Amino acid sequence: MLERIKRARRQMAEKGLAAMLFTSRENKFYIAGLYSGSGYILLTKKQVYAIVDGRYYLAQKQRMTQGITLQTDSAHPAAGQIERILTEEGIDRLGFEADEVSFGVWQKWRGTLSAELVPVSLPHLRSVKSEEELLCIRKACRIADQGYEYILEHIRAGMTEKQAENELLYYMKSLGAQKESFDIIVASGENGAMPHAKAGERVLQPGDFVTMDFGVRVGEYCSDITRSFAIGEAREPLRTVYGIVLAAQEQAIAAVRPGRRCREIDAVARDWIEKAGYGKNFSHNLGHSMGIACHEDPRFGPKDETVLEPGMVLTVEPGIYLEGIGGIRIEDDILVTESGCEVLTKAPKELRVI
Amino acid sequence: MLERIKRARRQMAEKGLAAMLFTSRENKFYIAGLYSGSGYILLTKKQVYAIVDGRYYLAQKQRMTQGITLQTDSAHPAAGQIERILTEEGIDRLGFEADEVSFGVWQKWRGTLSAELVPVSLPHLRSVKSEEELLCIRKACRIADQGYEYILEHIRAGMTEKQAENELLYYMKSLGAQKESFDIIVASGENGAMPHAKAGERVLQPGDFVTMDFGVRVGEYCSDITRSFAIGEAREPLRTVYGIVLAAQEQAIAAVRPGRRCREIDAVARDWIEKAGYGKNFSHNLGHSMGIACHEDPRFGPKDETVLEPGMVLTVEPGIYLEGIGGIRIEDDILVTESGCEVLTKAPKELRVI
Repeated sequence: MLERIKRARRQMAEKGLAAMLFTSRENKFYIAGLYSGSGYILLTKKQVYAIVDGRYYLAQKQRMTQGITLQTDSAHPAAGQIERILTEEGIDRLGFEADEVSFGVWQKWRGTLSAELVPVSLPHLRSVKSEEELLCIRKACRIADQGYEYILEHIRAGMTEKQAENELLYYMKSLGAQKESFDIIVASGENGAMPHAKAGERVLQPGDFVTMDFGVRVGEYCSDITRSFAIGEAREPLRTVYGIVLAAQEQAIAAVRPGRRCREIDAVARDWIEKAGYGKNFSHNLGHSMGIACHEDPRFGPKDETVLEPGMVLTVEPGIYLEGIGGIRIEDDILVTESGCEVLTKAPKELRVI
Repeated sequence: MLERIKRARRQMAEKGLAAMLFTSRENKFYIAGLYSGSGYILLTKKQVYAIVDGRYYLAQKQRMTQGITLQTDSAHPAAGQIERILTEEGIDRLGFEADEVSFGVWQKWRGTLSAELVPVSLPHLRSVKSEEELLCIRKACRIADQGYEYILEHIRAGMTEKQAENELLYYMKSLGAQKESFDIIVASGENGAMPHAKAGERVLQPGDFVTMDFGVRVGEYCSDITRSFAIGEAREPLRTVYGIVLAAQEQAIAAVRPGRRCREIDAVARDWIEKAGYGKNFSHNLGHSMGIACHEDPRFGPKDETVLEPGMVLTVEPGIYLEGIGGIRIEDDILVTESGCEVLTKAPKELRVI
């Protein structure tokens, strides 16, 4: 945890800041173990302060990183406590997470705090994962793999998408997952044409392709996997599309190594899908980083110039969506290594017909 | 839905605005049926525009309210589309949700949009529920009631809090719930002293009091119920505390009627608990409004001056928390009626020992 605090202080220093106020759940957890929508972490050159209200005080006292000064003061609002600390340490410029703080909160702070408020973006603070973080991510990936094998055995025609979702989640939580990383997608038949369809009331039919996109949290870290499979028989055109998506995904994974730019990996899959004639049917980025948040920077997108480094964890998830017919998406989580990458999700990818 | 659009336009007009840009999931759904973190609803005096990106276009086309102009234009960012509409309609002042839009987004808009950006707060836009909304809330409450009866039959010493949570949620989803309203709280033994403890790895013991706080979503609307019960035997001091909390809750519910202020209802429960000697152990508001968001305004809090109106739905949830020992909380959802209130959650409240 000390390493993370050092990393955050380095990024603060690069921006000429002596203090930074963290409000996002992800950064509060990353720096201080505070996984909560409420409360603040105030990082100065000397200290790390956690400012939480009475409702969370006891829970945080037990869970937070050692060495952090926990403050609770129900008589004074958080802004007052922050003002006092800044005055004590003689700090007159305070960084804040510009993409996390609402305009309304910023306005209130501007009226209360005497320090200059400096909007800051630290998109890559958490992008290189430690071994400790990877332990959680690996476990979350293993549970997702097991969940896929389980649901293939239990899903069947006649079930609704929602029922399949309920069975899958119940099983993954029984294996020790905290919860789902995001609302599980079960998109069957023509619903498969919607990249972000949620599990709904549609009843699974023989001849459907089904896309399931899911993941779980372990120790607050996410996994995220997608597989498409067929019920009864694998019909055209999606049978052919499956092969195109799988080839695109495998080529993109094979292209990952430190020093390459994110947009180059996106291009590998995108070019392949375009050459196969489905360019306009691949309507999203190839992938995203993943950690405490399920969607982090950098992204495997056409415009992301970030250079890959060992320790980054990203998804690789090309898809082809045909309106009125359905869709195919195949997604794995990968860890950038010294020489290439390691695929963290290991569920089989050959076309399964159940 | 038209009624809601009219209501939003009235509130816009009161603030002297000819257009308002909605970004919160809750208001986008309320006005236009768009339940998504991405996308925008632009409400003008003449039109309702939904601006969504390609990933959500198809899903939204199916789900959205009739009469709404759906725009998607992957070649132009949303701000460009908004700018074009404002220019066409000759609008030079645009309201936005000040508490929902990040400082970073506001900065970008300020650079792109030529209209003056007016920060707006509409905390009571959704506070009076329609019959259509109440249908969903009632169903969500019924499933929570059934969930409580189910878990009382299935929970037992030796189970972890997390296992109890998994059983409860699986069952409520099998009854048609979309998902949980919020992370389910199962706080056993000394964990009961933490009002917002999540379900964790603690193993339930004979002699524990267990507090379960949970709810589900139906049609995107929430329920929220809490019950405390004992395993094996109901020990002191919590047995006595249970009676105090229950009396506080029932008196507060009996005090609800149109025309009273929210803070007066809070005071009924708070005074009772203070007189019983536990004032400092009741560390949160008595309750909150509930709807598409699980926590809405107004609140049953010591400072909320809002006057109750028929159609408002709020929780009534006093609690007493004893550090190192445990806690008791009892929560129901109530609907303000013409003459008083109707209790929407109906699970029994006498002390249960299982």
